[in-house]
Order: sequence, then C-alpha cells, then structure tokens
Amino acid sequence: MKVLVTGSSGLIGSMLINALADKFEISALDARRSEHAPDVPTMITDGSDYESMSKAFEGVDAVVHLAANAPVETPWPDVLKNNISTTHNVYEAARQHGVKRVVFASSNHAVGNFEMDEPYCRIRVGDYEGLKPGGFKRVDNSVPIRPDSDYGVSKAFGEATGRYYHEHFGLEVACLRIGTVNPQNSPAGSVRSLATWLSHRDLTQLVSQCLTQPLGFEIFYGVSDNTWRFWDTDYAKKVIGYAPLDNAEDWR
Amino acid sequence: MKVLVTGSSGLIGSMLINALADKFEISALDARRSEHAPDVPTMITDGSDYESMSKAFEGVDAVVHLAANAPVETPWPDVLKNNISTTHNVYEAARQHGVKRVVFASSNHAVGNFEMDEPYCRIRVGDYEGLKPGGFKRVDNSVPIRPDSDYGVSKAFGEATGRYYHEHFGLEVACLRIGTVNPQNSPAGSVRSLATWLSHRDLTQLVSQCLTQPLGFEIFYGVSDNTWRFWDTDYAKKVIGYAPLDNAEDWR
Repeated sequence: MKVLVTGSSGLIGSMLINALADKFEISALDARRSEHAPDVPTMITDGSDYESMSKAFEGVDAVVHLAANAPVETPWPDVLKNNISTTHNVYEAARQHGVKRVVFASSNHAVGNFEMDEPYCRIRVGDYEGLKPGGFKRVDNSVPIRPDSDYGVSKAFGEATGRYYHEHFGLEVACLRIGTVNPQNSPAGSVRSLATWLSHRDLTQLVSQCLTQPLGFEIFYGVSDNTWRFWDTDYAKKVIGYAPLDNAEDWR
Repeated sequence: MKVLVTGSSGLIGSMLINALADKFEISALDARRSEHAPDVPTMITDGSDYESMSKAFEGVDAVVHLAANAPVETPWPDVLKNNISTTHNVYEAARQHGVKRVVFASSNHAVGNFEMDEPYCRIRVGDYEGLKPGGFKRVDNSVPIRPDSDYGVSKAFGEATGRYYHEHFGLEVACLRIGTVNPQNSPAGSVRSLATWLSHRDLTQLVSQCLTQPLGFEIFYGVSDNTWRFWDTDYAKKVIGYAPLDNAEDWR
C-alpha cells in the first residue's frame, strides 16, 4: 500500500514515517528540505501550488495530510495559504489521481471552545473537585464546530471539505482531531496535557487503523487513554479498533 | 443604526437596500461599479484586500455580508478569494472597528447534501407520495455540516468563523442559510423551489429581524412558509420573530 505523507519533516510527520515505514511504502511531500526529514522519496514543493504538488499523488493509495502551520496562533495569511489552500489541494489532487483515502490531521482546536464550558474549563486547569473521570459527557463527533482560532477554523474547513469529497466523489476520509503531541512524548509540563495528551505510539496506531480499516467519512479524536480526557475515544475504538496503550496519569 | 451592506449591487444586495433604506442608514461595499447599484454611499474595492476594504467599516453598527461568488459551481480559485478570504476580512474588519453585529449570507448549500437523503431527495423533485407536509424531520440548525460544493464549504467556513468571532470577541453573528432567491421573485420554473423558495419580502423581514433583535451566535434558515419546505423555520420564528408571509404553494 503506497502512502503519501505531507508535512513529512514535521514532528508528527517524521515520527509517523519512521514508525510506519515497515508496514507501508511511504513517499513524502514537504515545503522545504530539512535535516529532520525521514529517509523516504520526498517531493519538495509548496502545497498551495496545485500544479506542482499534485504530481506527488500519482500512483498513491492513501494520503496522510499533516502539512500545515501548526501553532494555534498562526496568523491568518499563513492559515489561508498553508492550511486552507493546501488542504483543498490535497483533497482535489487525491480525487484527480484516484487516491482512495485521505487521513486528515484535523485538530482539537476545531472544537476548542468547548474548553470555555463546564466541566472542561476546570479539567484543563486541574480542578477536578466533585468530578469523576468519565462521569460527564465527553466532547464527541456529534458536537457542532466551535473553533478557538483561525487555525481551528482552518481545521473545520478541512473537515467540511473532506465530507464534501467523500459524499460527492467517494473519497474515504478520516479526520483526526489530534490532541497534545510533543517532542518529549510526555504529558509532563502542562496540567491540560493530563487530559489532552496523545502519545506517539497511540497516534501511530490510530493512523495505522485509519489507513487499513473500512471507512467512509469519519471524525475521530486523537487522544491517549487518559483518565481525565474530555474527548470521546469510544467511537474510534468501535469503528476502527483504536487501541490506546498510554494514560497521562501514569506520568504524574 | 448604520448598516454596511457588502455585495450591494447583487440581486439580494440591491433588493435589500431598496427595501430597508427607510429603516436604516445604509452604506455599501462592492467589488465593481454597476448600473444596478442602489443609490447609497458605496466604496468600490476588492473584499480580499483587507487594508482597503476595512475602511468601509468605520462608524458602522452592523454589517450585512452578501459579497461572494454566488453560483454553486463557482471554481475553487474564486471561492478562495471572493468567498473565503473576503468573509474572513469582513469578520476581522468588524472586530477591528467595533462593529456590533454581522449578518452573514450563508447558504443552504452548507448542508446541501441532506438532499441526497430521504425524504428530501424526493421532495426536491416533487415526489410527495406517502409524505405529509411537516410530517418528517426538517433539516435544522443542529445538523452537521454537509456541503455539496466548494461554494458550500466556503459558507460552512463563514459560519465557523462567525462562531469563533462571537465566542472570542463578542461579535453578534447571524448566519442565514438562504434558500432560492431569484429576480422574478417566484418559485415557478423549478419543482425544487416549491420547497426552497424565499420571497424578497420574507428575506427582507428576516434580515431586518437579524439586525434589530437580541442575538448571540445563531444559524437560521432563509425560506418562505412553503408547505413543502424541508428546512426548519420554527427556530427563527421563536428567537427573532421571523414572520414569513409567502408560501410557494400559492404559485402552483
């Protein structure tokens, strides 16, 4: 199975490629050369340049689309070019070249404003008083979009585009509302991470399931089996066999 | 109350300005001069040029944002520039200039793919067999986004941005998923219009209510009181006193 990974030199891209290289035949697309780039065939081009970037989709079975400006504070002009325009191009190039499936790195920031509400606003700062883990409704894939930033809006855009391309063109699409992934691969350093952390191996397994399990259009939350998580993972467990192994609580 | 209308020379813009000119102090923003332009102070500028277009927002109380490429078939580059980029700029200019409220012309195409499903797929072609008007669940503001086009995706984008600007900056936002509005102001000529038609005077009253009634962030459907409508109007009737007078059935 030939898998194209966009944003391949980023934190998640390089980690995933190294972890999945024995299961899939991986190629890559990235905006620039990098010393952190994994050792796979890589096309260097601007994702917002359709004519150029779409060539990377020839002969590909599935795409893992990670390329984006990742900081939640990314200013609008960069969001427009590198998140919105590039993400449209990824779906369109996939359709044009008969790619079967896109795994889109959405973000928890597409629904980040739920963290303004009880009990999430308290859990994110470690105020668990009167709460039981899972004793409240977790934010799931049925909630309305509530972006907390232009970045979050761009991820909602990518989900909406994915649904359109699925329903009109039959593209299979998994949108992952990814939580907190960091280089140190640990929830230490932020109380919020005790709820939102996603370990490297759990992310790897989640993406692997998204590439190999039957799928139409789906939205899943990317979060480890954290005791205090406030995002739903039951749906991903049921639909694609997501099987997280880590729990941020073990890092306390 | 000072109201800025974007896309003022369009079908809806010119109709609305003429209908609302005695209730509000109206100014306008449009991409080009037009013989159809209403006789109000009008700034001619590209909505995707923030520095230029944002000047039109000085001293304004509310914005009715209609400027966009309206055809559902609009190609992506135009959607990106004239719908997505311009709509972001409208929200940002409103925020920057202390505008209190934005009425955003969203579209039924943000959820257009519900028309692939029963019973909407039959109603849209006039196959009413076994159905009673209102005897089925109408598509309401709680449904997930299901765009039927890049155009529809751009309207979903505008709604998501509106919600973000409301929750983060306190902007009051009404998103109108507008149905079928045409120059002849009649549902004749298309069976689907018997369900989806929105008369000029019903649209005018809907926008007027959106400008004057208490509001946070809301999504309303813009459709007349058509017997076979499949979009919800109860919510708009309850929240802002939408009071449609027309019914496409009277045109049969």
